[in-house]
Amino acid sequence: MKVELKENERIDDLEYKGLKIIQNTDGFCFGIDAVLLSDFAKEIRNNSEVLDLGTGTGILSILLSEKTKLKKIYGIEIQNEVANMAKKSVLLNDLENKIEIINKDIKEIENIFEKNSIDSIVTNPPYKKLDTGKINEKENKFISRHEVTANLEDFVKVSFNLLKDKGSLYMVHRPERLAEIIYILKKNKLEPKKIRFVHSNIEQEPKLVLIKAVKNAKEFLKVEKPLYVYNENGEYTEEILKIYNKI
Amino acid sequence: MKVELKENERIDDLEYKGLKIIQNTDGFCFGIDAVLLSDFAKEIRNNSEVLDLGTGTGILSILLSEKTKLKKIYGIEIQNEVANMAKKSVLLNDLENKIEIINKDIKEIENIFEKNSIDSIVTNPPYKKLDTGKINEKENKFISRHEVTANLEDFVKVSFNLLKDKGSLYMVHRPERLAEIIYILKKNKLEPKKIRFVHSNIEQEPKLVLIKAVKNAKEFLKVEKPLYVYNENGEYTEEILKIYNKI
Repeated sequence: MKVELKENERIDDLEYKGLKIIQNTDGFCFGIDAVLLSDFAKEIRNNSEVLDLGTGTGILSILLSEKTKLKKIYGIEIQNEVANMAKKSVLLNDLENKIEIINKDIKEIENIFEKNSIDSIVTNPPYKKLDTGKINEKENKFISRHEVTANLEDFVKVSFNLLKDKGSLYMVHRPERLAEIIYILKKNKLEPKKIRFVHSNIEQEPKLVLIKAVKNAKEFLKVEKPLYVYNENGEYTEEILKIYNKI
Repeated sequence: MKVELKENERIDDLEYKGLKIIQNTDGFCFGIDAVLLSDFAKEIRNNSEVLDLGTGTGILSILLSEKTKLKKIYGIEIQNEVANMAKKSVLLNDLENKIEIINKDIKEIENIFEKNSIDSIVTNPPYKKLDTGKINEKENKFISRHEVTANLEDFVKVSFNLLKDKGSLYMVHRPERLAEIIYILKKNKLEPKKIRFVHSNIEQEPKLVLIKAVKNAKEFLKVEKPLYVYNENGEYTEEILKIYNKI
């Protein structure tokens, strides 16, 4: 399907199974975060109904709809312009049977979906608290990065309400907020069950953390071995090449 | 100082600056946990007053009194027989000016120490919940390993009450309980500020986690790079050799 691009929009190759994504170079462009989260969440069961909270360009929904046999994924995005870009990317990849982009505030979607009805939720939420950013960034970039319209607890509360019992939430975030994330998850009966840290290389502290939490589950956290992006020669590790489908 | 040994007690060399420890081979013998925690906590300030909650054989108090310039460390141990062994180890190392072993339940020590008076607390608490053990173990080994007489929240509550404002708690524990640990720490106003995972080697999930929490601190968690015990050739890593003072 051919789509029309606006000024400042461009089509990027996802370098994964021929998938493409439309991005606005003035806005927030996808990073390794979404790619790693889609890999971390690829255990999602066949025929699942999935939500992607704060989908942005739609990257996570597009990757997951290829990496899994999910039935339907709903990508929720509050920013109208960004949601329109995501809709075009869905068309561009002929994925309109699998993905529906919904231009709504995540706090409003409890009126659209039934409580306790969703199998899994994925989210790459804004990483930064509202008090920590430079506010001279372009507005849509700022909203994608900072907790302007919804904070971590909003994402978690919506997830708890919409997930089925024992349904899973998959999240990528910054390690420096892990204590807060775990606290908010547990307070809202989403039990952290698996985490994995992502490091540039073996000498570095982690840059990202991948978290799986399960609604109403028992306590027992599996901390996986670290995921390293580069080996000691500065090349991508074998695991990263596998995730990017290069080997 | 020469001390008298009971049957089943033996003197082991700590292989660190000539320190020795008395252990009961039927009981809980010290492991790498205490050694790594003493290294993790060696930033403790000069002239600090320190508590070691559940000191067992006294290993952590003995190592810390050598690795830091603390003023005094009080090792609290509920088991009479174990506390007596720890007292003898203190004498054996001529550390009675620095270390005092107190044979008490940690829940009773709020009557001994003033509230908000302690600079730092270190603890290597029992790792296992009461419902998870084989109960045919010897009693003192069982109490050292399982939350029989005090659980995680007891350790944390006592720590909060006795620490000064911005005082630090250092703990070693099992990664599978990390979510619970973080939740209980935050609930009790001890903010997790630094964690480090310990792995056998780069291919393995972590076996231990070292945690520093600070009373009434702001949220911001530093996740350090992993600590690997063995390198790819199965030899101790340089970092482990340094911790054991071998290089």
